[in-house]
Amino acid sequence: MFPKNTWYVACTPDEIEHSPLGRMICNEKIAFFRGKEGVVAAVEDFCPHRGAALSMGYVQDGNLVCGYHGLVMGCDGKVVSMPMQRVGGFPCVKHYPVVERHGFIWVWPGDASLADADLIPDLHWANSPDWAFGGGLYHVKSNYRLMIDNLMDLTHETYVHADSIGQEEIDETPVKTAVVDGVVQTSRYMEDIIAPPFWQAAMEAAGLDPNQKVDRWQVSCFHAPAHVLIDVGVALAGTGKQEAPAEQRVRATVVDFMTPETENSHWYFWGMARNFKADDAELTASIRDGQGKIFAEDLAILEAQQKNLEQHPERRLLMLNIDAGGVQARRLLDKLIEQENQSAQG
Amino acid sequence: MFPKNTWYVACTPDEIEHSPLGRMICNEKIAFFRGKEGVVAAVEDFCPHRGAALSMGYVQDGNLVCGYHGLVMGCDGKVVSMPMQRVGGFPCVKHYPVVERHGFIWVWPGDASLADADLIPDLHWANSPDWAFGGGLYHVKSNYRLMIDNLMDLTHETYVHADSIGQEEIDETPVKTAVVDGVVQTSRYMEDIIAPPFWQAAMEAAGLDPNQKVDRWQVSCFHAPAHVLIDVGVALAGTGKQEAPAEQRVRATVVDFMTPETENSHWYFWGMARNFKADDAELTASIRDGQGKIFAEDLAILEAQQKNLEQHPERRLLMLNIDAGGVQARRLLDKLIEQENQSAQG
Amino acid sequence: MFPKNTWYVACTPDEIEHSPLGRMICNEKIAFFRGKEGVVAAVEDFCPHRGAALSMGYVQDGNLVCGYHGLVMGCDGKVVSMPMQRVGGFPCVKHYPVVERHGFIWVWPGDASLADADLIPDLHWANSPDWAFGGGLYHVKSNYRLMIDNLMDLTHETYVHADSIGQEEIDETPVKTAVVDGVVQTSRYMEDIIAPPFWQAAMEAAGLDPNQKVDRWQVSCFHAPAHVLIDVGVALAGTGKQEAPAEQRVRATVVDFMTPETENSHWYFWGMARNFKADDAELTASIRDGQGKIFAEDLAILEAQQKNLEQHPERRLLMLNIDAGGVQARRLLDKLIEQENQSAQG
Repeated sequence: MFPKNTWYVACTPDEIEHSPLGRMICNEKIAFFRGKEGVVAAVEDFCPHRGAALSMGYVQDGNLVCGYHGLVMGCDGKVVSMPMQRVGGFPCVKHYPVVERHGFIWVWPGDASLADADLIPDLHWANSPDWAFGGGLYHVKSNYRLMIDNLMDLTHETYVHADSIGQEEIDETPVKTAVVDGVVQTSRYMEDIIAPPFWQAAMEAAGLDPNQKVDRWQVSCFHAPAHVLIDVGVALAGTGKQEAPAEQRVRATVVDFMTPETENSHWYFWGMARNFKADDAELTASIRDGQGKIFAEDLAILEAQQKNLEQHPERRLLMLNIDAGGVQARRLLDKLIEQENQSAQG
Repeated sequence: MFPKNTWYVACTPDEIEHSPLGRMICNEKIAFFRGKEGVVAAVEDFCPHRGAALSMGYVQDGNLVCGYHGLVMGCDGKVVSMPMQRVGGFPCVKHYPVVERHGFIWVWPGDASLADADLIPDLHWANSPDWAFGGGLYHVKSNYRLMIDNLMDLTHETYVHADSIGQEEIDETPVKTAVVDGVVQTSRYMEDIIAPPFWQAAMEAAGLDPNQKVDRWQVSCFHAPAHVLIDVGVALAGTGKQEAPAEQRVRATVVDFMTPETENSHWYFWGMARNFKADDAELTASIRDGQGKIFAEDLAILEAQQKNLEQHPERRLLMLNIDAGGVQARRLLDKLIEQENQSAQG
Repeated sequence: MFPKNTWYVACTPDEIEHSPLGRMICNEKIAFFRGKEGVVAAVEDFCPHRGAALSMGYVQDGNLVCGYHGLVMGCDGKVVSMPMQRVGGFPCVKHYPVVERHGFIWVWPGDASLADADLIPDLHWANSPDWAFGGGLYHVKSNYRLMIDNLMDLTHETYVHADSIGQEEIDETPVKTAVVDGVVQTSRYMEDIIAPPFWQAAMEAAGLDPNQKVDRWQVSCFHAPAHVLIDVGVALAGTGKQEAPAEQRVRATVVDFMTPETENSHWYFWGMARNFKADDAELTASIRDGQGKIFAEDLAILEAQQKNLEQHPERRLLMLNIDAGGVQARRLLDKLIEQENQSAQG
């Protein structure tokens, strides 16, 4: 179960640069393409003529031409024309509110009349020259909630990512969970420690001595329904953590958008935004590669977990203090879904 | 749904040249092999001893020997012998009427008592030295009716096969549909046009100037239950189309046999018969390669269409004038199936 | 259907040498690992924290550490500890009786209170310097009973393994079936014949002239629920068969353990123990390779047979004299399963 009256990241601009993209989101098969003046559009991926997949066609004059018999579909789901046909009586297909913003294409898979672009989250770093962003996309054969749990409880880093961002001190440091203004926040501060390999490399890249002791922080923020931003970084020990002078810290935001595909699978858009050496494209690529490898480690774990849960739907999982972030996130989700169901009936 | 009391193309002779062939046709698992004096035979692909697949065995003295324990199956589905066993009381398996003709192996998957070899379609070009034939086989994960639709409405050539046989004039020229003597016929004539790349190459091969204007014709004929023959070609403009003198035209028959495997998949035997340069084997191979590539483009479209239709079984598709051929073909099919059901009950 | 209150071969020691192993046995997902002092342990492959697969973790101090959040699972299915957590109230998972013996890891997937290590079959050759063993593991997509049938009726060798151990005389020689002390035994003696290629090579390896006539024997013994040992060999004709002087015969035991995975699949542990040239490791490897190829031929047959039987569950298979071994084996199995069901209800 997932809310549908909300914005999800559908794809990145490069995915629709040369041709339309067919992608299932919240059980809806959608064709994304660039319409007139390059403005992004999204219609049901189903040609009203004979059911062909519109995403296998091409864009012409801002419309999507079906690759089978040339039906021309408009951005609004209305048929524009078809060779030798009068299309006035042709049925429409659904079209979806879709917005390009902050380097992503956002789609609203539910009731279009409720879509409001102002509800798209503000990603300040996306539009600032002081920040650089690199990221990628994974298809994960698990319910999207398992990824939210994963990101709201970073103790798994010690085990899943032992060689890069894991370290024993994570396990030894309690995590605090709070819900502030509808955002679930789990935070952990580790003081006077040696940074793990990933952060030592970042310190070196930023001109800091990687062997100096640091204070390290991880603040995961879940924004319903499906993204987690994690403020992460290290500052030289005792210099003020996140508030330390810029030259004494390395700070980044781990960016995670989970977009349900079906009940048992999701699209995972991951990345990292950093505000040090923002113009170093090589560093961006290298961080992206490293993060890609780290996040791939999670996939195997989550997909096996999903299979286990499908085999034992009757089992109650534990909800420990470290799971509080995930538990609170699921509560918000359940509430959103309940609201949607009620207003659909009302 | 498909008629079963009818002849379908099961395979080509080369497929049973060296060993038996197991193939599912109309949900029947069938083992094809060459019996005594090379006469083709077809029995259920199920050994009555322990259920092994007979098609994994070998042929000996005109019988099919099970590759597991050596049961010897006759062409008539009766057990001939088995080492150290008396087989008198052994159960039989089904055998299927099967005929080799016109370069194909034909099978009748339904009621054997109704099979009549005279009902096998007459493919005149198959037995004439003036004609050459080249073709192939594709397994398609779609209902066979989607392929019939595809072949009865060639407007898709403009979109799916833009680089070879497609051209804008197809879209601009109306198609005529008629049912004559139980054959659904859709025809399109384009006059005074430049030939598309495939036909320019054919003109060149036939010694014509490919840059001369031509009249082009496409006449698709659907013969129930499952083959479409398309009379295609170009003649120098104004010389009489199909009736033009042989040296002023290039003419061919596109040959398409659709054999249902299951409700959601079929075997697609495609090919082209031509009556120019019939003894040029190199040209046959080159046309075959080109056609193979063209028809492979249809597969992706049809398989995506099949998935869309399975996801939305409730949707009514449009039936435009260009779809009239497919619509008429389906009507004939539904009638045949209804007749079969009635006579089965009667 | 399969008995669960019994020992099955779960894996070989090399499979858990470096890391835990996750394997489904009788529909139970089990994690195998080496606990304290290397003693093998088996627990349910489901972390009670969040359902992760424990087998994806690692072993530390004789316990299995979950690779997701570090829960430490004991060999007895009780949670030992977890970073920053009190685990007293954590639910347990199942643990399974498991024993390492005769070069295999044995598991008892059913009622642990009934497990008795004395019931593990005695494999005398496994612990004797006069014998050498080589073997392997195949995953087979068929019910395990089809493999038992296969091994209890070696007439299939003539067909499936024509190039190695098959020969016409197998078909021509009747087989005797008997049930002795709960063991189903099928035996076949072929006298004064030329050995087939596999045995000619063995004779040569053992210093015998491969062209001399031999007496050949095959004695398959089914031990419920799921292993078959086959006494096989050749002795120079007239020298006493199995009882011939050691220098005039080559003798081996074909070893087959079938472990159900699900209703439609099983793990097939195969191998050969021989008491000639026991210290010739190269010969062991060469026999193992040859046997591996021979047994792979059975897989294709069995997997096709399984599909046929699934498609036609209503069909009664024949039960010929050559099938008597399999039939008797199934009777023992059915009795065991019935006993289990009754004691579960009682």
